[in-house]
Amino acid sequence: MRARALTTGEIGDSLGCNVVGVRDLLITGILPIGEAEAFDLTFIANPKYRSLLPDCRAGAIIISPTDQTPPHIVRLETPVPYIVFRKSLGLLYPDLDRDFPEDSIDRASISSKAVIGVGGSIGAFVSIEAGARIGDRVTLCNGCYIGRNVEIGDDSIIGINAVLRHDVKVGRRVVVGDNSVIGFDGFGYSPEADGFHKIPQTGTVILEDDVEIGANCCIDRATIGSTRIGRGTKLDNLIQIAHGVHIGKNTVMAAQTGISGSTTIGDGVMIGGQVGMAGHIDIGDGMVIGAQAGVTKSVDIKGMVSGYPARPHIEGMRREASINKISDLIKRVKALEEAVKKVK
Amino acid sequence: MRARALTTGEIGDSLGCNVVGVRDLLITGILPIGEAEAFDLTFIANPKYRSLLPDCRAGAIIISPTDQTPPHIVRLETPVPYIVFRKSLGLLYPDLDRDFPEDSIDRASISSKAVIGVGGSIGAFVSIEAGARIGDRVTLCNGCYIGRNVEIGDDSIIGINAVLRHDVKVGRRVVVGDNSVIGFDGFGYSPEADGFHKIPQTGTVILEDDVEIGANCCIDRATIGSTRIGRGTKLDNLIQIAHGVHIGKNTVMAAQTGISGSTTIGDGVMIGGQVGMAGHIDIGDGMVIGAQAGVTKSVDIKGMVSGYPARPHIEGMRREASINKISDLIKRVKALEEAVKKVK
Amino acid sequence: MRARALTTGEIGDSLGCNVVGVRDLLITGILPIGEAEAFDLTFIANPKYRSLLPDCRAGAIIISPTDQTPPHIVRLETPVPYIVFRKSLGLLYPDLDRDFPEDSIDRASISSKAVIGVGGSIGAFVSIEAGARIGDRVTLCNGCYIGRNVEIGDDSIIGINAVLRHDVKVGRRVVVGDNSVIGFDGFGYSPEADGFHKIPQTGTVILEDDVEIGANCCIDRATIGSTRIGRGTKLDNLIQIAHGVHIGKNTVMAAQTGISGSTTIGDGVMIGGQVGMAGHIDIGDGMVIGAQAGVTKSVDIKGMVSGYPARPHIEGMRREASINKISDLIKRVKALEEAVKKVK
Repeated sequence: MRARALTTGEIGDSLGCNVVGVRDLLITGILPIGEAEAFDLTFIANPKYRSLLPDCRAGAIIISPTDQTPPHIVRLETPVPYIVFRKSLGLLYPDLDRDFPEDSIDRASISSKAVIGVGGSIGAFVSIEAGARIGDRVTLCNGCYIGRNVEIGDDSIIGINAVLRHDVKVGRRVVVGDNSVIGFDGFGYSPEADGFHKIPQTGTVILEDDVEIGANCCIDRATIGSTRIGRGTKLDNLIQIAHGVHIGKNTVMAAQTGISGSTTIGDGVMIGGQVGMAGHIDIGDGMVIGAQAGVTKSVDIKGMVSGYPARPHIEGMRREASINKISDLIKRVKALEEAVKKVK
Repeated sequence: MRARALTTGEIGDSLGCNVVGVRDLLITGILPIGEAEAFDLTFIANPKYRSLLPDCRAGAIIISPTDQTPPHIVRLETPVPYIVFRKSLGLLYPDLDRDFPEDSIDRASISSKAVIGVGGSIGAFVSIEAGARIGDRVTLCNGCYIGRNVEIGDDSIIGINAVLRHDVKVGRRVVVGDNSVIGFDGFGYSPEADGFHKIPQTGTVILEDDVEIGANCCIDRATIGSTRIGRGTKLDNLIQIAHGVHIGKNTVMAAQTGISGSTTIGDGVMIGGQVGMAGHIDIGDGMVIGAQAGVTKSVDIKGMVSGYPARPHIEGMRREASINKISDLIKRVKALEEAVKKVK
Repeated sequence: MRARALTTGEIGDSLGCNVVGVRDLLITGILPIGEAEAFDLTFIANPKYRSLLPDCRAGAIIISPTDQTPPHIVRLETPVPYIVFRKSLGLLYPDLDRDFPEDSIDRASISSKAVIGVGGSIGAFVSIEAGARIGDRVTLCNGCYIGRNVEIGDDSIIGINAVLRHDVKVGRRVVVGDNSVIGFDGFGYSPEADGFHKIPQTGTVILEDDVEIGANCCIDRATIGSTRIGRGTKLDNLIQIAHGVHIGKNTVMAAQTGISGSTTIGDGVMIGGQVGMAGHIDIGDGMVIGAQAGVTKSVDIKGMVSGYPARPHIEGMRREASINKISDLIKRVKALEEAVKKVK
């Protein structure tokens, strides 16, 4: 995609940077430090990439005042390079919403009993069922399904082919990713004498304001009550949230993680990728759960748990270290056995 | 969703409970024990939640005769509270099928060479290809795809945007969840001198009667013969079943589990979430596979395997315990070394 | 599905085999060794299945000259049975492309500003947005979405309900599986004083020639620059590729694996199922990553890594073996303690 062309001076001034070097270099794109060329802006925030600085061929760089650069690069100095980088993307690419549908009402299936606000758009092959209430400036991307009595708040975006089943409630400024399924029946069967009996799933799903859900996720409806994702929480792709799970505010969850039924997760929790959590447990506010951890019981500590079964990360590292000492132990025991034999 | 309003007496009598307390309290919903209010029914089956009983504010509770409750709550006593809870949901929410499509044949793409039974419904944007044979009372939700020569038995439900590729065979009373893909080509490449060659996937997938598949699952067609899911087996969301896998009857599999090619799984197996199984192995009837286990070889024991590589759960616990003893061992060996030194 | 009927002589000659037995037996299908009957062809390549040979009831078998068979079976002898098996599938099932859509341009939503080549087909409910450039003989299966300015090379196939978001670039002979999402926004938030700020995702995704992607996968667009999958690389189902990942040529990745942001993977890497990789790491050419491994740092060795955290497989096996010796060590230390006590 082509960026808006701006000079180094314009960019630096807009972002509150100290511009060191020419102010009239025209920048036409932003690229990673190893790929940027003469008319590109780049940045460095992760020290891991500092080794690429001497060979950097970018025209300009967002950088901490203390990092060194080759003489030809225009420096946009700031103490917070990652934040300034984030802002520079908005500045150079002001119009990213390129999959917003053209209004295709004639190619959509819209119930006459739905209520739809103003200022939004509805893509081709969208379904809106009876009783749905959709706020203002809502984007319904192509092929998405809005079930009966679903409520969607203002300024939300429902992705391509995403599914919101009946009675799901979505707040304001929510994003649901492509092909995600919100409100499918929870996985509940009662094993009885004559086989499994499906447990009717009578509850719903609530996504509070500013929640963002990735692509190909599943958030199941509760058996009774609600599965609830708290305000500002962000989920990556391919995540499974089972029935009756409650997640707090501003929690972040990486891809392919799965949370079993009726578990509660606090506010501000950071959860790595491919984590699994057992059902009916509680995770405290502010915790960090390492990638691939298998959390089998409730935990509320300051800091991080990891591994299977999940334990405090530092304890896990100690265990790893102790396993490394076994072969040394074997040698020492053998030496002792020989020494004792001699003494005898 | 609003429940059907019934009195405590009506509910208790319908479900065969002993009603202790007023019989004319009108119940209008079912909620979890921590959320239920004066006109709600709740239940307790998992002892974990017994601590919430003293503060329970529900109007009525499904409960074992031996559990205590505050005096104001109407007790619906039964020795099997979970089964009665399951039945109460059907009683109070008799009409849950709220995403059944209105018939939208004019918005669907239906081959004139398909055969479709009576009493079903076809949603908007459904595709039905030539040679498909669809039974009676089958629900094809919006946007689903029924490929060439697919067969679907009576009373089955195919979810929103679900895909059944050509020649897939689906039994009676089967449910396929939203966005699941049944019959995509198995992942098979022959590494030859000039690179990978795709192995044509000529087989199919068979879902027997009463199988239920969650949302966003993949069940690949066999290279030759069939991938087969046995009668009554239930799969949760985001599950991968590779080509040529055979699963027995009444097996249950939790979310995000993956089974590699040509593996066979017996009847009545319970498989946790995020389990992985190697290809070409056999899992015995009635086994339990713990969540996140990595099963690398065939296993047929009474009981549970867990961990990576998966081993009998009790053996895994012993290993964990023995690792905990290493630091103690190190101390004892050090003491021995000093003792021996002195003796010398 | 029914195979093309050919005689054992015709099949053997076409595939360059030595035919031992009757040449005029009519073969009408290919099935696994345990299921094949009198008019079926079967094969044996994995020694694991050799035990099924004595009871094999197939009409003919693709087999190594050194394996024994019951006298009635026609032998199609070859030193490379798996390659010949692969070719036999193409021979007997020459027309497998059974979900290729009938052209349904009147049921698709096609922008007048898209450019579409010749010889392809467009299924029902397909969306093609403005600026898309689609090559010759491209198959767009039902319900797929081709976003603005997407480019697709000749002879590619985009699966049912698959999503290619704006500006994604797809090479020639590429396959994108059903319900996969290519080019959804990467998962990037800057944690700042007033909460999370979304980092605009301005980059794209490039799938080079001959790439094949399974069903229900997610390949996110880069924050800046491109997420790139190299020529000939094959991905199984339910895989997560985060923003900015670069994968080399002819790499193979099994189902449910997830790669975190900005990681690079070399050429010819074999990656098992349910593997997780941290972000910003590098995986060397030709490596093997065992199933369920959690790769936490860069690695470039000859051979395989496995486990969590991933280490060379042989080292992991040694650790496993050393853990098994702990209980023996405890006994020996106890004996030593008693011996030393006596000596004292």
